[in-house]
Amino acid sequence: MSKTTQHKSALKENKGVSSQEITNKASISKIQKKRKAQPSTDDLVAGILNGEITPLSRAITLIESKSGKHLEQANTIINQCLPHANASIRVGITGVPGVGKSTFIEAFGKHLTALGKKVAILAVDPSSSISKGSILGDKTRMEDLVKDPNAFIRPSASGTSLGGVARKTRETIILCEAAGFDIIIIETVGVGQSETTVHSMVDFFLLLKLAGAGDELQGIKRGIIEMADAIAINKADGDNIKRAKLAQVEFNKALHLYPEKESHWQPKVTVCSALNRKGVSETWDLIKDYIKLTKDNSYFNHNRNEQNKFWLLQTIEEHLKNDFFKHSKIKIELDKQLVLIERNKTTPFAAADYLLGLKNKL
Amino acid sequence: MSKTTQHKSALKENKGVSSQEITNKASISKIQKKRKAQPSTDDLVAGILNGEITPLSRAITLIESKSGKHLEQANTIINQCLPHANASIRVGITGVPGVGKSTFIEAFGKHLTALGKKVAILAVDPSSSISKGSILGDKTRMEDLVKDPNAFIRPSASGTSLGGVARKTRETIILCEAAGFDIIIIETVGVGQSETTVHSMVDFFLLLKLAGAGDELQGIKRGIIEMADAIAINKADGDNIKRAKLAQVEFNKALHLYPEKESHWQPKVTVCSALNRKGVSETWDLIKDYIKLTKDNSYFNHNRNEQNKFWLLQTIEEHLKNDFFKHSKIKIELDKQLVLIERNKTTPFAAADYLLGLKNKL
Repeated sequence: MSKTTQHKSALKENKGVSSQEITNKASISKIQKKRKAQPSTDDLVAGILNGEITPLSRAITLIESKSGKHLEQANTIINQCLPHANASIRVGITGVPGVGKSTFIEAFGKHLTALGKKVAILAVDPSSSISKGSILGDKTRMEDLVKDPNAFIRPSASGTSLGGVARKTRETIILCEAAGFDIIIIETVGVGQSETTVHSMVDFFLLLKLAGAGDELQGIKRGIIEMADAIAINKADGDNIKRAKLAQVEFNKALHLYPEKESHWQPKVTVCSALNRKGVSETWDLIKDYIKLTKDNSYFNHNRNEQNKFWLLQTIEEHLKNDFFKHSKIKIELDKQLVLIERNKTTPFAAADYLLGLKNKL
Repeated sequence: MSKTTQHKSALKENKGVSSQEITNKASISKIQKKRKAQPSTDDLVAGILNGEITPLSRAITLIESKSGKHLEQANTIINQCLPHANASIRVGITGVPGVGKSTFIEAFGKHLTALGKKVAILAVDPSSSISKGSILGDKTRMEDLVKDPNAFIRPSASGTSLGGVARKTRETIILCEAAGFDIIIIETVGVGQSETTVHSMVDFFLLLKLAGAGDELQGIKRGIIEMADAIAINKADGDNIKRAKLAQVEFNKALHLYPEKESHWQPKVTVCSALNRKGVSETWDLIKDYIKLTKDNSYFNHNRNEQNKFWLLQTIEEHLKNDFFKHSKIKIELDKQLVLIERNKTTPFAAADYLLGLKNKL
């Protein structure tokens, strides 16, 4: 079996069986047994550490499961993978729909695999839990990468909360790293707080933009530009090249007006045409420069530690909040207090005191 | 007694007695009684609603008190003032030390009182609780405003937490509004999260900057530029005028690269020389334009409601967090978990689960 087939089958791993196994008729009865008896935790870990896609996909499915038993198994796998994690470069990519994210990731990913790198592509897409769609679901836009044995594409975990999706994505990163992926790309479409979430789990944050009149106000959220380590102005092809270069100058000037980043990195602006695969290697060069700088000045590790601390505290805070607001009595009284505040009958602080007192009596 | 003397005495109100009363020899024995018997809640409220400075200052002191009895009295006063609050324009002003904040506020405040407005100047200064200093403490830099009967200057409330300082400031705003102040200026020096805090309690947020080489990177924090409704480039005098105008052009261009604000207001850049009182009236004109726009498009009230909701939730969350992390056992185990995370022995999520489980057993 070719690696391509192996990879395609991996994408279908939810069925719990790979096409390699199906083509091997002699082992069909064995597979049928396996279907009933899921692979053991040890088998999955061994497979992941061996860089195999099927056990990796299967373990991610366990992470995403709602079953307590699966989550317990997932936690064991994560713990055994942890000592082998952390060696990748984590790159966040954001940009509004239409900016060419899929095309960019396809070109960028192919550039990396051509350099001998293994690339995993994940997504944080809180909208997918509502629309049941997924930003990586439409893989036809990444057809070269889908076939690439050194690329692994996994659509966004669905979930009811961004916190839940974030946790699953962070845990998936650990497994991908243990499986030997050198670069983890995390795509987000920028709904709600998803950029901030992705920014808090990556080493380098790339913002894709378009050039041209009005395009500066493409509806990206405030605060995103300040998060970016680089802005790539995409679709710099044909008539657009001149406008893209002009936008590059403008953004470069604008970025210099910002206070210095804690990383001491001066954010860069590049132009590219992902469609024509131009300017994509320059983005990778930038990332390498960034990694060198931040590893030399220790920001790289400092940032990862800070991110870990952030996620620890964030998880606790989210739990405490959910625990407080889940009570129907609190929900009803919260709404009442908000009305009272709006009518100048109470202050937000007095309302908070009241609700906290109420909770203690529940 | 002149209004000036009345105001000066108000600044000394901590002594619990105004100079007006002292000069009135006939009532000295009455004062001595009053010293023991603090003015009643009703007296304080009546005085505030009558626009008197002494009861206003005294009520703010109650808000800032650590005594439970005082706080109870403060809450009663706040509740009675609430129906008379909300009619002011709340302006936040930030900028790094040396940018000329005091000089600007002096010029700006005098401009407003000359227009017949009553101006209150408060501060959110988390550093004052550490240094025991206060950004408004040095009133010699606002000597005209200090003497102005239509201006009320109150240094930052000290407190151990920014949340605590914020609450006291928000409650002080209510009292000042009930006392008939038309414009409430809230100054911050930009330590820690103080800009975000001030931004969450004002209608209009002004950033003061300096022009000139290197001054663009004056150490203001990232994210502040995106919060600003206007940037005033100060000290545009003498040799600096040309550089200030150049900076104005650059910042104007940069601000246009940002996504549109929810208020639909396009942030403006002005130049001014607070020292020569030039360009200060333009800032007030800008604020008036902003208020007109946002009252017309309903953002003004929407924003105040959102701010109220934010403070309500913020107060609850802060309480829940403090309640969780105050346990010494949790503190010790948190540190241990952070070490384990750093050593790749656990994940932030597993660590959070562990700590939450631990809390349930306490």
